[in-house]
Amino acid sequence: MQLATVTGTVTATTKHAGFEGLKLLLTNVIDSDEQVLQSAVVAVDTCGAGVGDMVLIVNGSAARIAAPTSGVATDAAIVAIIDRVEVATST
Amino acid sequence: MQLATVTGTVTATTKHAGFEGLKLLLTNVIDSDEQVLQSAVVAVDTCGAGVGDMVLIVNGSAARIAAPTSGVATDAAIVAIIDRVEVATST
Amino acid sequence: MQLATVTGTVTATTKHAGFEGLKLLLTNVIDSDEQVLQSAVVAVDTCGAGVGDMVLIVNGSAARIAAPTSGVATDAAIVAIIDRVEVATST
Amino acid sequence: MQLATVTGTVTATTKHAGFEGLKLLLTNVIDSDEQVLQSAVVAVDTCGAGVGDMVLIVNGSAARIAAPTSGVATDAAIVAIIDRVEVATST
Amino acid sequence: MQLATVTGTVTATTKHAGFEGLKLLLTNVIDSDEQVLQSAVVAVDTCGAGVGDMVLIVNGSAARIAAPTSGVATDAAIVAIIDRVEVATST
Repeated sequence: MQLATVTGTVTATTKHAGFEGLKLLLTNVIDSDEQVLQSAVVAVDTCGAGVGDMVLIVNGSAARIAAPTSGVATDAAIVAIIDRVEVATST
Repeated sequence: MQLATVTGTVTATTKHAGFEGLKLLLTNVIDSDEQVLQSAVVAVDTCGAGVGDMVLIVNGSAARIAAPTSGVATDAAIVAIIDRVEVATST
Repeated sequence: MQLATVTGTVTATTKHAGFEGLKLLLTNVIDSDEQVLQSAVVAVDTCGAGVGDMVLIVNGSAARIAAPTSGVATDAAIVAIIDRVEVATST
Repeated sequence: MQLATVTGTVTATTKHAGFEGLKLLLTNVIDSDEQVLQSAVVAVDTCGAGVGDMVLIVNGSAARIAAPTSGVATDAAIVAIIDRVEVATST
Repeated sequence: MQLATVTGTVTATTKHAGFEGLKLLLTNVIDSDEQVLQSAVVAVDTCGAGVGDMVLIVNGSAARIAAPTSGVATDAAIVAIIDRVEVATST
């Protein structure tokens, strides 16, 4: 799983039927210092997340366990809104 | 999921039977500023997408949920044609 | 699978129900010289691991075989606490 | 899916039983200008491909849909021999 | 699939039950010139491989088809010991 910041929204009229009613959020994967590791990951929201939230993202088939409907053809989902990241060592 | 631009088409006569009748599109994965993040991703179209469209791509087993036929041996599919990407913060 | 060092913890109140009661650990993927190869991977602990431990991480659907509950929407899990890495050749 | 060029062959006597009788090809993942994006991907051939062919490669569980036998422990397969890549825009 | 060289071993007392009795090998993913492409991949051995062998590695769910026991929470396995890589063109 990866830490990410929600940076925007994606709108699509023509889409696979399973996406109807779901919110597609644009995110940047970040590290614990909020440095961007990967940009422009689009994830289905399952937590009521919004722009500016730090969230937890899952990829692959895990995204379909978290999604509100199981038949959604997604490979990324937001599964948690993060309250706090505590780093004990900087390694 | 990833934002992508459709840049071309791929034609193959000799192919796994499941691909018969499907459209194979060449795409570039992009960020919200349309900078190319990954080039030459070939995806099965499920939305009637064409060259120049900005689309949403899924990878892995998700691609077979979206595909018109479920037995297709693909690991990438276009699941939406994007109308609008709204970026609220530049992070 | 990948070697990793546990560097911290992640706390989330709003999350997919399957994560209740599970410990989310922040890790850095490392090589055998403890050089960081990938930072900020969040994994579900299944071994009683803690900060400072060198652990073995699995990604993808493997993470749900290891997890205490099979319905957890995770794509990363700690499946072992490493005692010793023996490198015979430096290649 | 990815474009690739077949560059060689891989031979193994000691192998998982499922690979008996299958052809293992060495490939380089390329873009539409035939620049190498990733080298040394080994894929099971399902199309009668040979050295020098431009092919379409799938990764992950998709590779086992395409493989002649479904119990093969592979994560990469050649699913098509490409006739033509048409690039409409250079993006 | 990827070419790899076995460089060492990994020992863990505390581990997911499925790993009992399995050999965990440290490997470097290489190309056909034995240049290292990715270091520190830990894979379950299914072929009797040892340090110094050139092997074939699979990732993801394929690793659980090859593993001696199907309930192992691994995402990487050694599925063949390579005798010979023949490169016909240097691309």
